[in-house]
Amino acid sequence: MSDAHPAWLPPAAFTTVGGCRVLVHGGGLLVDTVFDEVVRACATHGGQARRTGDRHPAPSGVASGVGPSTPPGRAGAPPSPSGPAGDAVDLILAVRGAEPLPAPAARADDGEPLDDEGFLLTRADGLTVVLADTPAGLLYGLFHLVRLGAGALDVRATRRHRPALRRRMLDHWDNVARHPVMGQVERGYAGGSIFWRDGVALRDRERVRAYGRLLAACGINAVAVNNVNVHATEARLLIDRLDDVAWIADVLRPYGVRVHLSVTFAAPVLLGGLPTADPLDEAVRRWWESATARVYAHIPDFGGYLVKADSEGQPGPFGYGRDHADGANLLAGALAPHGGVVHWRAFVYQHQQDWRDRSTDRARAAYDHFAPLDGRFRDNVILQVKHGPIDFQPREPVSPVLAAMPATRLAVELQVTQEYTGQQRHACYLGPWWSEVLRFRPWGPDGRTVADLAAGGGLVAVSNVGDDPFWTGHPLAQANLYAFGRLAWDPGLDPVAVLDEWIGLTFPPATTGDPALVRETLHAVLDDSWRTYERYTAPLGVGFMVRPGHHYGPDVDGYEYTPWGTYHFADRDGVGVDRTRATGTGFTGQYPPPWSQVYESRERCPDELLLFFHHVPYGHVLHSGVTVVQHIYDTHFAGVAQVEQMRRRWRRLSGVIDPTVYERVAERLDEQLRCAVEWRDQINTYFFRKSGVPDARGRRIH
Amino acid sequence: MSDAHPAWLPPAAFTTVGGCRVLVHGGGLLVDTVFDEVVRACATHGGQARRTGDRHPAPSGVASGVGPSTPPGRAGAPPSPSGPAGDAVDLILAVRGAEPLPAPAARADDGEPLDDEGFLLTRADGLTVVLADTPAGLLYGLFHLVRLGAGALDVRATRRHRPALRRRMLDHWDNVARHPVMGQVERGYAGGSIFWRDGVALRDRERVRAYGRLLAACGINAVAVNNVNVHATEARLLIDRLDDVAWIADVLRPYGVRVHLSVTFAAPVLLGGLPTADPLDEAVRRWWESATARVYAHIPDFGGYLVKADSEGQPGPFGYGRDHADGANLLAGALAPHGGVVHWRAFVYQHQQDWRDRSTDRARAAYDHFAPLDGRFRDNVILQVKHGPIDFQPREPVSPVLAAMPATRLAVELQVTQEYTGQQRHACYLGPWWSEVLRFRPWGPDGRTVADLAAGGGLVAVSNVGDDPFWTGHPLAQANLYAFGRLAWDPGLDPVAVLDEWIGLTFPPATTGDPALVRETLHAVLDDSWRTYERYTAPLGVGFMVRPGHHYGPDVDGYEYTPWGTYHFADRDGVGVDRTRATGTGFTGQYPPPWSQVYESRERCPDELLLFFHHVPYGHVLHSGVTVVQHIYDTHFAGVAQVEQMRRRWRRLSGVIDPTVYERVAERLDEQLRCAVEWRDQINTYFFRKSGVPDARGRRIH
Repeated sequence: MSDAHPAWLPPAAFTTVGGCRVLVHGGGLLVDTVFDEVVRACATHGGQARRTGDRHPAPSGVASGVGPSTPPGRAGAPPSPSGPAGDAVDLILAVRGAEPLPAPAARADDGEPLDDEGFLLTRADGLTVVLADTPAGLLYGLFHLVRLGAGALDVRATRRHRPALRRRMLDHWDNVARHPVMGQVERGYAGGSIFWRDGVALRDRERVRAYGRLLAACGINAVAVNNVNVHATEARLLIDRLDDVAWIADVLRPYGVRVHLSVTFAAPVLLGGLPTADPLDEAVRRWWESATARVYAHIPDFGGYLVKADSEGQPGPFGYGRDHADGANLLAGALAPHGGVVHWRAFVYQHQQDWRDRSTDRARAAYDHFAPLDGRFRDNVILQVKHGPIDFQPREPVSPVLAAMPATRLAVELQVTQEYTGQQRHACYLGPWWSEVLRFRPWGPDGRTVADLAAGGGLVAVSNVGDDPFWTGHPLAQANLYAFGRLAWDPGLDPVAVLDEWIGLTFPPATTGDPALVRETLHAVLDDSWRTYERYTAPLGVGFMVRPGHHYGPDVDGYEYTPWGTYHFADRDGVGVDRTRATGTGFTGQYPPPWSQVYESRERCPDELLLFFHHVPYGHVLHSGVTVVQHIYDTHFAGVAQVEQMRRRWRRLSGVIDPTVYERVAERLDEQLRCAVEWRDQINTYFFRKSGVPDARGRRIH
Repeated sequence: MSDAHPAWLPPAAFTTVGGCRVLVHGGGLLVDTVFDEVVRACATHGGQARRTGDRHPAPSGVASGVGPSTPPGRAGAPPSPSGPAGDAVDLILAVRGAEPLPAPAARADDGEPLDDEGFLLTRADGLTVVLADTPAGLLYGLFHLVRLGAGALDVRATRRHRPALRRRMLDHWDNVARHPVMGQVERGYAGGSIFWRDGVALRDRERVRAYGRLLAACGINAVAVNNVNVHATEARLLIDRLDDVAWIADVLRPYGVRVHLSVTFAAPVLLGGLPTADPLDEAVRRWWESATARVYAHIPDFGGYLVKADSEGQPGPFGYGRDHADGANLLAGALAPHGGVVHWRAFVYQHQQDWRDRSTDRARAAYDHFAPLDGRFRDNVILQVKHGPIDFQPREPVSPVLAAMPATRLAVELQVTQEYTGQQRHACYLGPWWSEVLRFRPWGPDGRTVADLAAGGGLVAVSNVGDDPFWTGHPLAQANLYAFGRLAWDPGLDPVAVLDEWIGLTFPPATTGDPALVRETLHAVLDDSWRTYERYTAPLGVGFMVRPGHHYGPDVDGYEYTPWGTYHFADRDGVGVDRTRATGTGFTGQYPPPWSQVYESRERCPDELLLFFHHVPYGHVLHSGVTVVQHIYDTHFAGVAQVEQMRRRWRRLSGVIDPTVYERVAERLDEQLRCAVEWRDQINTYFFRKSGVPDARGRRIH
């Protein structure tokens, strides 16, 4: 489809599905997609594809659903002489609908309704059956079979699958016009945008279609196509560049991916020429209604708006003396008649804080702004909350907002693009981190998880994709995109098992010189890579310590005296931020018990978050038994040793895998090691200079 | 001439010269300029202008030398009925040349030769006489009279004037094409360039002519018209954009200002298509000869080349295994037949240093590179040495290179643009700083001064001028440009007296509501402003501590772990760079006695340079009697208090001076105070956190 790297959908991933006799039953655009996929897979791997139950003009039983992407002259297998199903079939993919199911599928059907996007996988009459109530469910069922690989024909138990979170969305921080500071993609580390370049829509159909296919195959069903920081050119997408947005929607639609748009709250003024954008103004309300109706006239299945308001310079309701419920409800009202939603970001804080002011705590901001508004948002408002209270650090506690708004639909926002986790120059598999977040239980072991709280809203992530040939700059960063989709579908998955899936799909055994070595090496490099990254960067949850602006590499004091609210308060005696109720900013009080007590207590607080919640002396002894400063030294030496080990392990793949992937990763591991050494030395030197405490093991500190 | 602010040449500055009867005697372009100036002044102030000894077509005795800039219909005074000189004259400006001098001038002439640019000022037959051997000398004599003001007609003693330094040059770090990071003017704080905009030559004749006039009036006689970092567009000036350079030369020529060009050492490769730029390659030599001949065909009085080689990424002879004498001599050889010079910058250092490597010392670099080459440079090479060993900090020792190269022509490079001294948002009069540098005696009290050492080379400064209406962004930064020219002419001048000159010219008494208040206020604001700036920024000569990249505002550790070689090594016990021979980098050994001993000794080293040369405990007691850390607190509180005082003083000028000047300065003083408070608080907090020592006076440290 595209010259880009096939990621987790190389042709070999379809060996099993494409090698058998497949019947696809049902009608509709996404069933066409399923059939196209099957036809192409069979053309490659020698199987046979048939179609029935298609309400489209072509008669059932003829391989006529072949889409334009099927190679000419190889239009699937010839129709079987037997009926719509039977002994010539190994696999049936069927949508329950107006037309009767093929016989084995009908026997497998227990009549229980399936989720909108769910499917049932079973075995009947000696063949594998996927049943769905919707074409989208069937598409997810197909990709599930692909993941099962050889096991797809060896299904034993009946199992129903449905996504735990309804919305599984990627936010592209892509600018249409190249921003003078932030570039084409804000915080993008994979080249330019796949949608836009220098002010115009790229309209690279093959690339965007390939992207939609990858998203569907890992379970993602929505994409916001422009940056949440909406600059002048991007603002116009809403009004006079809707054709560009509609084009993307058209290309992604066959893969079940809906398109959302980031809009500026000031649009009625900027684009509509109104004197105000006051959310309670009647003319403003009418303007949004009319603008939204025009969007839906272009894109009937448009997903909705994404808004960053009153945040880091973006306009918002505060400018008119209104609150964020007023602001979000305005847009939600315009979207409601069309079935759209507004994703309203809770990332609102004072970004011009005075570093001298120890009473203001950025961590408190989202809760302080939004918790009082619980219950005031319309049904189709989704409050989009960053997973942590600060900003996508490699370690933060879970945001207390998530436990504070029972009457609000909540989405959790993650960052797949590695802004603070190595910028796709470092191998850093984030699945384990997101898994910890999604499984976190704000009310303790018997309470609901974060994933439960987000079920009605969704899981959203900032995309790590660009026009790079490997999609993500670092080829191994593809695993993060994949894991995001998979965890959004099922937050209960083991992130290492997800990684294993990804390895199997991306490096199919038949295409490598030594499948066992490949699998072992990728696990060795990636399984613990997030914790490795944590070890050599900012210690014990204190965060930041990155170079201001670009956020790459260490600068311990880089943000210490800035207005950004991200401080560590290290002095000659100790380090950390006192966020307790007893003596600090009181942030711990935003959590329900037990965490409000656990975080409040220097003794009970988990080591990895100690400096997020407490200012402690360098000699404070951790649960691990070592002092804070010795922990800093130990983890930084260990982190670098682990990167050296990762690099050694990777070198064993030379000549074993695709050399372009090998080389790209090898060169990035060199940079990761260089940068990790820099982190180690700067952090260790900084704390040695401050504390005067020598390393207990006598290692070299500069 | 231009809409820009008149700076130190408002019409009122010509009250005395323009109010009397003036005879200008002599021929040539610069005498035309003198006569034009006189004619214009007389037209404004009621005097009379005549001309004799002009070899131009117009007959002598007729005011025919009126240039195109004279207002129509006001072409000077009518010719006097008497001869070329006589009782109708108050002032004679005459060049000794082929034609006989007017009688009083002839009587004043003692026959002693004058310097190329010198002049003699005397009184004969009851009138004021200026004599020169060259038109340039006469022009400087005219502007000297302007500076004398009312005193110009009250000359008592005969005095000969000549510049102490032959070349008094401004380097414009102006880019032709706007650089994506550095902008139109690198380290420019006064808007765009007066020469270039967005890749094209502006050719604003009025503006450039006004600029040349200001330069001549303060004694500057050379300008390099493009940035020493020569990017792609700028490289082409040398070859196919010579018309643009020649245009500037044509406009500046009437004011005695010669044009120089920054060139890239890689020009033979980049522009000539040669395979090498090796300075010993015969084809390269021929290429430079031919290119240089073409330059002189366009600009017969072209000044020469300016080269930044092997520095911060610029190409140079090291790339070919040659040294800087080879490189500089190559260009000097091409320039010699035409009388041009090459200014070769000694700013060569390892800018990718490892901060862990304490043995490498950037301060040593220029000496280590260049001192061994002494005697190997051609006569028309001028080695251009930054005044300090690092980079234009508000306090550095004088560069030891200046005392180490007796057989080399040396120019001292200053920075008028305030990169590290407040970026023309802070009022910081640098005259006292430059005066200290120029008067410094590397061999002790009986030896020569820095100014003596630079006599054969010159004084060069990075320009602070842009297309801002006030020329320099901050109106008071005009004083720095003025003082640079005046100190280059006469390094023995008292910088406060120079400032007083500037005040008198720029704020003529007749144009202000309260001349005494104006003069007193400007002195109060500016006299000590450099030391005030020093007080609230990096302490005791340690330097840097600025925000990386843009270099504005504090960031104590901003450069501490970078490759730039600018460190302070502060830890919990002390601060400073050990550059001694005994225990440090040995940099003190680059000085001759007595400074090699003075700087080596922690006890004898001047307080203001202590941390440049020594790493000392916070409790070290300075000559001033206080400890280092208490000095840091005291000076930072004092510096801010002084800025508050400056601001209060300035406010008294509201309604007294030109409101546009008043407002611009007032707004910048607000910013200066904000920024000074930030410096104070960050520096004090940083050292309090590190040292744990409380302020002896109990003031608030955050």
